[in-house]
Amino acid sequence: MKQRITFITLGVADLNTSIDFYENKFGWKRSEMSSGDIVFYELNGISLALYPLNELAKDATVDAGGSGFKGFTIAHNTRSEEEVNTLIQSLREKGVQIVKEPQKVFWGGYSSYIVDPDGNLWEIAFNPFLKMDE
Amino acid sequence: MKQRITFITLGVADLNTSIDFYENKFGWKRSEMSSGDIVFYELNGISLALYPLNELAKDATVDAGGSGFKGFTIAHNTRSEEEVNTLIQSLREKGVQIVKEPQKVFWGGYSSYIVDPDGNLWEIAFNPFLKMDE
Repeated sequence: MKQRITFITLGVADLNTSIDFYENKFGWKRSEMSSGDIVFYELNGISLALYPLNELAKDATVDAGGSGFKGFTIAHNTRSEEEVNTLIQSLREKGVQIVKEPQKVFWGGYSSYIVDPDGNLWEIAFNPFLKMDE
Repeated sequence: MKQRITFITLGVADLNTSIDFYENKFGWKRSEMSSGDIVFYELNGISLALYPLNELAKDATVDAGGSGFKGFTIAHNTRSEEEVNTLIQSLREKGVQIVKEPQKVFWGGYSSYIVDPDGNLWEIAFNPFLKMDE
């Protein structure tokens, strides 16, 4: 099995609310694959998909009920500590909830967390040990 | 904010159990960034990290409690329907729980779902509309 991921799909309570978050707070642009039922954002070699939570559970043939910590985080790394600060400040001004303010962390990086409308945790961080291609 | 994801981190109940799953069932190889506390798998431009659930919640400054559907799925796409069948059969033989058997689905693809030891849902699918670079 190749070490490959093609999509991360987030099950969302309300598609329009999530679209507003990813397009107006993050400023992302959806890909042409998107429709009125599912929205895709093409990232660095993978896509993030937004799909109604109930439909996602149905597709996976599991119960849609769930609560609390989802047990995963998604990280968006920047090229500097300053870029973390600027991004967090910009998101704050757009009304995004900052869960953890930018701070130096034990592993040597500089990290913060925000949440999307469904409680999905995004880490916004600078990792001095990480090589980023672009 | 660039359309970029650097890491997906899964909070795991037992690191060794999860390592066994990703290395002996999926057959993945960890990257050199890994330590005894956190394990990374380098994928197509992003990395999957395994980190103890309680530590992940602590890092994000949220409560670690949660249950039920986690509201997200990760997709691994193949190049053919046959490849889905072969992969699912191989995973089944290694004791992996198949949540949804491979089948044609409404959007024109061929899809199945499995779970990892923490209930994270992986979709193993062939999407005839998807262009894959490698």
